[in-house]
Amino acid sequence: MKELRFPLVALNLKVYGEALGEGALRLSKVAEKVAEEFDVGILVAPPLLSLKTIAETVEIPVFSQHVDPYSPGGHTGSVLAEDIKEAGAQGSLLNHSEKRMLLADIGAALDRLRRNGLKSILCTDTVETTRAGAALGPDIIAIEPPELIGTGIPVSKAKPEVVVGAVEAVRRINPGVRVLCGAGISSGDDVAKAIELGAEGVLLASAYVRAREPERVLSEMAEKAVKAWEKRP
Amino acid sequence: MKELRFPLVALNLKVYGEALGEGALRLSKVAEKVAEEFDVGILVAPPLLSLKTIAETVEIPVFSQHVDPYSPGGHTGSVLAEDIKEAGAQGSLLNHSEKRMLLADIGAALDRLRRNGLKSILCTDTVETTRAGAALGPDIIAIEPPELIGTGIPVSKAKPEVVVGAVEAVRRINPGVRVLCGAGISSGDDVAKAIELGAEGVLLASAYVRAREPERVLSEMAEKAVKAWEKRP
Amino acid sequence: MKELRFPLVALNLKVYGEALGEGALRLSKVAEKVAEEFDVGILVAPPLLSLKTIAETVEIPVFSQHVDPYSPGGHTGSVLAEDIKEAGAQGSLLNHSEKRMLLADIGAALDRLRRNGLKSILCTDTVETTRAGAALGPDIIAIEPPELIGTGIPVSKAKPEVVVGAVEAVRRINPGVRVLCGAGISSGDDVAKAIELGAEGVLLASAYVRAREPERVLSEMAEKAVKAWEKRP
Amino acid sequence: MKELRFPLVALNLKVYGEALGEGALRLSKVAEKVAEEFDVGILVAPPLLSLKTIAETVEIPVFSQHVDPYSPGGHTGSVLAEDIKEAGAQGSLLNHSEKRMLLADIGAALDRLRRNGLKSILCTDTVETTRAGAALGPDIIAIEPPELIGTGIPVSKAKPEVVVGAVEAVRRINPGVRVLCGAGISSGDDVAKAIELGAEGVLLASAYVRAREPERVLSEMAEKAVKAWEKRP
Repeated sequence: MKELRFPLVALNLKVYGEALGEGALRLSKVAEKVAEEFDVGILVAPPLLSLKTIAETVEIPVFSQHVDPYSPGGHTGSVLAEDIKEAGAQGSLLNHSEKRMLLADIGAALDRLRRNGLKSILCTDTVETTRAGAALGPDIIAIEPPELIGTGIPVSKAKPEVVVGAVEAVRRINPGVRVLCGAGISSGDDVAKAIELGAEGVLLASAYVRAREPERVLSEMAEKAVKAWEKRP
Repeated sequence: MKELRFPLVALNLKVYGEALGEGALRLSKVAEKVAEEFDVGILVAPPLLSLKTIAETVEIPVFSQHVDPYSPGGHTGSVLAEDIKEAGAQGSLLNHSEKRMLLADIGAALDRLRRNGLKSILCTDTVETTRAGAALGPDIIAIEPPELIGTGIPVSKAKPEVVVGAVEAVRRINPGVRVLCGAGISSGDDVAKAIELGAEGVLLASAYVRAREPERVLSEMAEKAVKAWEKRP
Repeated sequence: MKELRFPLVALNLKVYGEALGEGALRLSKVAEKVAEEFDVGILVAPPLLSLKTIAETVEIPVFSQHVDPYSPGGHTGSVLAEDIKEAGAQGSLLNHSEKRMLLADIGAALDRLRRNGLKSILCTDTVETTRAGAALGPDIIAIEPPELIGTGIPVSKAKPEVVVGAVEAVRRINPGVRVLCGAGISSGDDVAKAIELGAEGVLLASAYVRAREPERVLSEMAEKAVKAWEKRP
Repeated sequence: MKELRFPLVALNLKVYGEALGEGALRLSKVAEKVAEEFDVGILVAPPLLSLKTIAETVEIPVFSQHVDPYSPGGHTGSVLAEDIKEAGAQGSLLNHSEKRMLLADIGAALDRLRRNGLKSILCTDTVETTRAGAALGPDIIAIEPPELIGTGIPVSKAKPEVVVGAVEAVRRINPGVRVLCGAGISSGDDVAKAIELGAEGVLLASAYVRAREPERVLSEMAEKAVKAWEKRP
């Protein structure tokens, strides 16, 4: 099932050595298997050069890690919404802390995604920029305080007020937008905590990609995500 | 009087040949004179290297053309809010179409301005990004469709719906934020039209800086701005 | 034959509508056919998302349109040398005028390509930056005065002194580096002229990608390239 | 004396809190005093907003921390060579590791400086990019391995081979270019060591700007620089 489902565990494979070539395929198949087993939303964002292969192979949503704000034309080295669609993917991350975008380009890139029937996960860094992001109307916002990315210190525990603040800000500005939280998410408990704080899922990378046993880690997250989701008011 | 007043004619001197060195001083003094004569708000944003001199000389608000998102530290070649304040200026433009910024940096730069008691004019390009900009809470938003900048085709006439849309969007998201419009503003009529559409002033550059008779041009704008302002409902 | 051969016609498919998805495949197969027929060097640089598919399909050199300066790791949305190699491609363009890079990043990206056994085509814009580029030791430099890109006015005719100057500069600084010229190359005559001026081939995009009859255009270029090559002193 | 002299101690004041407003003036006057006392070359690069004031006050060379590649025109927030000259300064740093530039822009910015009779200090990070930088013909290259900037671990001791390699590379490519080294330079001994390795001076920032006794630190550097300079073969 290629549609987005919530709670959602969004897996950004980045370009870790473990995620290149065959690695992307292996990690995406594990994600697909866990999604089926636990009946939970899981999406993968593989390296750009593997996007097409992964999108053709797995039955979960596949996202690009980045999208440029252009229409087809003379834009050497760019990633277009048209081409993401053509590759069979369902949408794109944009403005990740490792690939920040100009405000004007975020606006244009979201427009390009929409016109191509694709979904968007817009990354933001603070409650303030989350508010701005919500005003741009992406499908999903993933708030990630950059100072916690890759640390193993989960935002949901270290900065719960940022998650709660983001959820509230989005609700006020544009209640149709879903909120994920990211940065430091490493365990099922971190995921559960995120959902308790009002997020509808998480965005994570190294804790899955670089795990010794990715399937075990993801299964635990999926299981706890479902349980936390059921307890929501 | 160094405080912001409305209607406001904001003059971006850019780095036109006419605005370097003595030129910045001359153009800023003309602006000061017209502001007094017509009892209207006028501000100047001179080239960075003239900011201090101009701020020390004229009795109208002086703005930087850009501000970086950093605190004092190791940031070679940057323009800090602390230094803008130290120079005696009142605030800064940011995210001009010729100096676009990352969303994350806009959020941080606005924060830096606020903490230093400085005012902000955030430039945006579409109704969408204006909405996002308003959510970030600058003092003023200046909407400028980039395709009209420098053309002499005024946004207030060519794309009135953009001005109206921006005004409405801001009112809904963050009514404390003032709206200017820019791009192609060349005459008093363009200014009047902008105010009729709901803007509280204009942001312009070449029509003033490169005019044969800058004082005549600005006087006409000031006069018509005041008249249009009085007729506002 | 996946090795680089000279004279070389390097085809940058950019992200023109004609070059997305199936288009990239079609245009790459035509290039392969012409390369065989005329026994001339032709390479294609397809859109990033098609790189792997094209590299797996055609028997001519396939290049990425861009490469980032990073090693595998946390670099969301980046294109790594490791992944270009994994995809089966032979090298990468870098610093195209539509994807300019920092000097420091060009140095690092060339290093990444070398360590992965990949070839490089470094784009430059003037004789000066060609000299700098040559000092960095790429395999090939493609000089393209940006003001002529996409115009149909060939650099080999409009600015022969730039081509000659680039060839001489490279010879003096780093004679192992090959020189292509680009910008406005539209016909077999333009290609022949480039070779007469000392270039060892051309880099082109729209004249091939957007041609009504790409095969005819490319065949004519290949034919004239070979003839001009034979006449070289 | 506003002309460049060697050995040269180039002081980048960055935008440290100690270097804003009056701080820039104080630190520049100390530099002027030490330059006279020890009869040695010292230059200061103050924050942009203080450039004019400093250039009008001290009798040593004053440099901008950055220069953009543009001619006068519509380039909001840019720093032009024309304006640096107008401010009375003698030249500019460019491509500092905290303000990296595109290769194409470095070429154009150097051209802008030259046409305005200004001097250039081009920062580079490796022997490779130093070679490329030398080919662009700046007046001075300052090689600074970025990983050592601000650490207090001097490049002249930690990576002598980088300094030697840079000096040799420049000599081979463009012997008219002078070489400074930077990063971690904290004491007179570091300066002496740099000169022994073939550099004609140093570029430093925090060790001077943030020193408890800047005059003492700089005097010691000046003294040891002169001694090392006299011993040169």
